[in-house]
Amino acid sequence: MDQARSETVYHYLQSLQEHLCRDFESEDGARKFLKDHWQRPPEAGKLAGRGTTAALEAGGVFERAGVGLSDVTGARMPAAASARNPQLAGRAFRAMGVSVVMHPLNPNVPSSHLNVRYFQAGDIWWFGGGFDLTPYLIFEEDVVHWHRAAALACEPFHKRLYPLLRASCDEYFFMRHRGEARGVGGLFYDDLNEATSEIGMSWELCFDFMQSVASRYLEAYLAIVRRRRNTTYGERERQYQLYRRGRYVEFNLLQDRGTLFGLQSGGRADAILISMPPAVHWSYRSPDKELDARLLPYLTTLRGQDWISANAA
Amino acid sequence: MDQARSETVYHYLQSLQEHLCRDFESEDGARKFLKDHWQRPPEAGKLAGRGTTAALEAGGVFERAGVGLSDVTGARMPAAASARNPQLAGRAFRAMGVSVVMHPLNPNVPSSHLNVRYFQAGDIWWFGGGFDLTPYLIFEEDVVHWHRAAALACEPFHKRLYPLLRASCDEYFFMRHRGEARGVGGLFYDDLNEATSEIGMSWELCFDFMQSVASRYLEAYLAIVRRRRNTTYGERERQYQLYRRGRYVEFNLLQDRGTLFGLQSGGRADAILISMPPAVHWSYRSPDKELDARLLPYLTTLRGQDWISANAA
Repeated sequence: MDQARSETVYHYLQSLQEHLCRDFESEDGARKFLKDHWQRPPEAGKLAGRGTTAALEAGGVFERAGVGLSDVTGARMPAAASARNPQLAGRAFRAMGVSVVMHPLNPNVPSSHLNVRYFQAGDIWWFGGGFDLTPYLIFEEDVVHWHRAAALACEPFHKRLYPLLRASCDEYFFMRHRGEARGVGGLFYDDLNEATSEIGMSWELCFDFMQSVASRYLEAYLAIVRRRRNTTYGERERQYQLYRRGRYVEFNLLQDRGTLFGLQSGGRADAILISMPPAVHWSYRSPDKELDARLLPYLTTLRGQDWISANAA
Repeated sequence: MDQARSETVYHYLQSLQEHLCRDFESEDGARKFLKDHWQRPPEAGKLAGRGTTAALEAGGVFERAGVGLSDVTGARMPAAASARNPQLAGRAFRAMGVSVVMHPLNPNVPSSHLNVRYFQAGDIWWFGGGFDLTPYLIFEEDVVHWHRAAALACEPFHKRLYPLLRASCDEYFFMRHRGEARGVGGLFYDDLNEATSEIGMSWELCFDFMQSVASRYLEAYLAIVRRRRNTTYGERERQYQLYRRGRYVEFNLLQDRGTLFGLQSGGRADAILISMPPAVHWSYRSPDKELDARLLPYLTTLRGQDWISANAA
């Protein structure tokens, strides 16, 4: 049964990757995803696995888009990874997921990230994932739209789900060294299963939730892309976007657990680092204090804002 | 006496920073360093300290140059930092250093890095530092020149010094996730003092060595800059440089101990990240396999090469 469950999730993730690539390609209009199928036999210090890295670069709308599918297995759970679940130490495991990072060319269009993943070790399983939005030029209505989508993704499952996962997202994407969040949040969950405090959900419900997260992400992000893709901008806005993308790099290389775990376990660097923005600037001082003054409140003081109730109809 | 020693080193480091800024400014010709003096009172979770961050940006020769001086003190040595020296746990300490990172505009001119630092906790002290070179377009004579300077910096002190510090450098700057070094090496030392295996040196000799490292660095790097700064290049070489600079970012944020310690101990992010290249590209595949084929052997198979004997007169 456990293998059947993994296979069910794997088939869904495969079709999710195809679906995402198709929709983003058609939104982009100019470029196609290049798909790279990979396979890695078991090897010392590395996880065995297979996957497909899909990358669209220099597109009409997306300067870089990455949609990765991976499915790795390990003969023995590493001690570090099983610290929270000591009953897992030494067990064989399988971990799979789809990760999406979108870096649009137009600085009016925010970057976005989706991850959905599944883990199984014998009869122990959990789901993880979430989505978050990283604007450069801020439009409050996009923030509200995004959080509504997050709340809608959670609504059919448990009334505590959205506030809990939204709070986890705020916490996870906070950059301690900058004192600011990577973006305006969304959802984040790390180990959703029957035993998750307050909101234990059956395997079937968790799997449904994974699908709900992915489809609400796609719908909400495409809506924001369509709303902003033709908004004009100049060199000033472009420079600001390039500078702010530095924060994206800093978060991913300094803090993101998936990135660090992937690189440490011998994953393919180019596939893992598909999340890196295509072009980035660093400067000693922010190039634009005025644009900072508009954006930064959303990444600091407004971080915990209740976007749903405050904007209820 | 111990405080007198710290003060002696601090005054040297101050004058070193001034000297480096003056020479790099005059080499650049177009821009000046902006100097930012900072001071931080003791605060929970952060180290108290003072320093001067000097940054030259968008220069004629240097697209970004950073020369930082810092002098921090802690009331109690953190457990993590004293793992190798348990007798230090809980002691008051003072740590100071000068760090230099140079990112030239012309891809024919390599990036370079110098660090010299001093640590004191009561009667325990050590020196650390080194220099390393990161070429984008490779010129073997620059590699040889650089290693000759490294050997010359060490020569007056101990015959085992260069081979030991050169091997530490190769090890320190190896990026496991890429299977390649950040550059072509140089010198790296972490805790040089009287008790260092094989080459225990007195405080006075260690301090002399710090000065030898700094002055050989400056001399060798300026020689290479002058040799390459007028070499013509086109868009192809520039694109390759931007792409390769991604590796510099990856090393600094994933592995560099100074960067990670600085950010974790509440240091000023913009000052610490002055090491980041000013403009960087990431792409799923290398944009230039031909230039890779020239450069990569120097970062992989030729990493352990004996550049001194092989090029003896």
